[in-house]
Amino acid sequence: MGESPADRDVGGQVSRLLEEAKELQDLAASLISRTSREEDTLRQRVASLDSHISSLRSSLRNSKHAEKLEDDLVKARYALSEGDAAAFLPTKSHGRFLRMFLGPINVRAKKDVQLKVKEEYNKFRDRTAYLFLFLPSLLLTLRSWIWDGCLPALPVQLYQAWLLYLYTSLALRENILRVNGSGIRPWWIKHHYYAMAMALISLTWEIERGPDCSQKQRGVQLFLTWAIMQGVSMLLQNRYQRQRLYTRIALGKSRRMDVVWGETAGVEGQLLLLCPILFTLQGFEAYLGVLLLKTALGGFTSEWQVITSGILLIVMAAGNFANTVQTLVTKSRVKAKMKRGKSRQDLNQGFDDKVSD
Amino acid sequence: MGESPADRDVGGQVSRLLEEAKELQDLAASLISRTSREEDTLRQRVASLDSHISSLRSSLRNSKHAEKLEDDLVKARYALSEGDAAAFLPTKSHGRFLRMFLGPINVRAKKDVQLKVKEEYNKFRDRTAYLFLFLPSLLLTLRSWIWDGCLPALPVQLYQAWLLYLYTSLALRENILRVNGSGIRPWWIKHHYYAMAMALISLTWEIERGPDCSQKQRGVQLFLTWAIMQGVSMLLQNRYQRQRLYTRIALGKSRRMDVVWGETAGVEGQLLLLCPILFTLQGFEAYLGVLLLKTALGGFTSEWQVITSGILLIVMAAGNFANTVQTLVTKSRVKAKMKRGKSRQDLNQGFDDKVSD
Repeated sequence: MGESPADRDVGGQVSRLLEEAKELQDLAASLISRTSREEDTLRQRVASLDSHISSLRSSLRNSKHAEKLEDDLVKARYALSEGDAAAFLPTKSHGRFLRMFLGPINVRAKKDVQLKVKEEYNKFRDRTAYLFLFLPSLLLTLRSWIWDGCLPALPVQLYQAWLLYLYTSLALRENILRVNGSGIRPWWIKHHYYAMAMALISLTWEIERGPDCSQKQRGVQLFLTWAIMQGVSMLLQNRYQRQRLYTRIALGKSRRMDVVWGETAGVEGQLLLLCPILFTLQGFEAYLGVLLLKTALGGFTSEWQVITSGILLIVMAAGNFANTVQTLVTKSRVKAKMKRGKSRQDLNQGFDDKVSD
Repeated sequence: MGESPADRDVGGQVSRLLEEAKELQDLAASLISRTSREEDTLRQRVASLDSHISSLRSSLRNSKHAEKLEDDLVKARYALSEGDAAAFLPTKSHGRFLRMFLGPINVRAKKDVQLKVKEEYNKFRDRTAYLFLFLPSLLLTLRSWIWDGCLPALPVQLYQAWLLYLYTSLALRENILRVNGSGIRPWWIKHHYYAMAMALISLTWEIERGPDCSQKQRGVQLFLTWAIMQGVSMLLQNRYQRQRLYTRIALGKSRRMDVVWGETAGVEGQLLLLCPILFTLQGFEAYLGVLLLKTALGGFTSEWQVITSGILLIVMAAGNFANTVQTLVTKSRVKAKMKRGKSRQDLNQGFDDKVSD
């Protein structure tokens, strides 16, 4: 089996590669085990400090000279929850929704990726908000312009399938944001579950054709109107949210603690403009729900879909209203405290909330 | 402002906590930056070794005395891809589907979680396979038993919504498995995209009522029959897959390399039983597709849904058939090589494939 010099050369290369593979394998194993040991130690210390802070804060609540001390505790909590140590805080539970769709995978991002995830989420909302406004408007325009007052089934159903995808994706992304420390109010995620149900129900809706279709399609038309309204509301909020995030990133470069002061100040005026519009939209949402119920009871379309959608719309409107009011109350309470130079105990909550959806 | 001793005591505690928070913050920052530096170095070395192995393997393909050398290269690649070093191999792209639903989040699990993810996926398939078989059977039984040959809309639509959720979740989980190094064939994931489309289309299907509904509901009945068939196929494969995984885990405790030998040996007989059944089911799937097309062209229900579903079924059947055959060919080629004690060059591929779905 005479080996040529070239073969020997290749043979040498191969055995070197094999050795390096084994070496790298060992290096990787030791790095992983060392890192996870160090991380575990840090994780324990962070968790115990975190629970210390909590218990001390609740005991301070009854004390009189507590304000300065509580300020310090808030600072300590802030150092833990906004800095690199946050990576070692106990993980928030992933929640049923994520487990249902993804299984037991961990979706917690590293600190440097978290802002990117949030920015991408905002971009996703931006991109979709325009479609949200455009697609149902197009359908309703074509309806009176070309389709003689009678919507054909396929384009409407394609649009509804897109809506279902959109709300599913939003709900998944918001659950992921929550795991990564976003303080998004649970209601806004729940709101997207209801919207998913709406989209799903609308898919099973028969799009009637025939002579009196404009009467029979009343439910579908109301649904499309609701969608347009959602588009307007989404666009407004995206503007508001984006501005808050940019202020945050910009200020974050100087000092972390300033971030919280700066961001309310910067968008105060916008919020005054946003709220009346949101309340109007919420009122309109409830009104659409009532109209749907009336349509169903009036006998034009007595399908279960119409009744369920009507109830869902009213529930969503009520929940949106209650949560917008709560957010405003929290914000103004914090502002009042800041003015009086008093305790900052609400800093950790309420600032990352969305105003509405 | 005379401070009581108790206040001073609390004050001391608070300032200690604040200091510890800052200390932990610093520790966390340095641990994170050090770890990521070390990981980057390792990542570079692993990537360069990996590409070295690839280029040397392709140059060996033309050489004569290559068998022993190629064996060594396969071993080197195996050490990289199955051990701890795998965590530092270049990440597989997440793919459009995951990005579409989840955004830019990283779903790569640590080595010790990966087997858990795979086991949970198998359990999920088990749980659903029974429902898969039970629900459409129940609907079809009730149809002839209670509902006088005429399916009511709501139960069918609830079932279809469940199907849509199920296929979406399976597609998400399989994409996550793929990112985590599972060698699942791309076709089986694509197959679940088609099944998602089927479920979505079936939701928009009008469930006709009225005197000749049993004719008009022919499409829905065929759809339910397809679903039952999917359930049978899923149950069989789950059995097969689970056994393979358990063999793998059991053997993995002794030596990694043995895993690959052992698992084929253990389930060889099962595969001989599984394949004829799978081929029969695939033939039946194509036949259902043809029936759907005939129904549509026969004029009973000429909706676009029926035609599209028919085409989808035929495409799925053809793809399933082609991929099952390919898997069998790969497996038998590897087996032949093993018998002749020859090169193991196909070890890295083909073994983690699913047989069918």
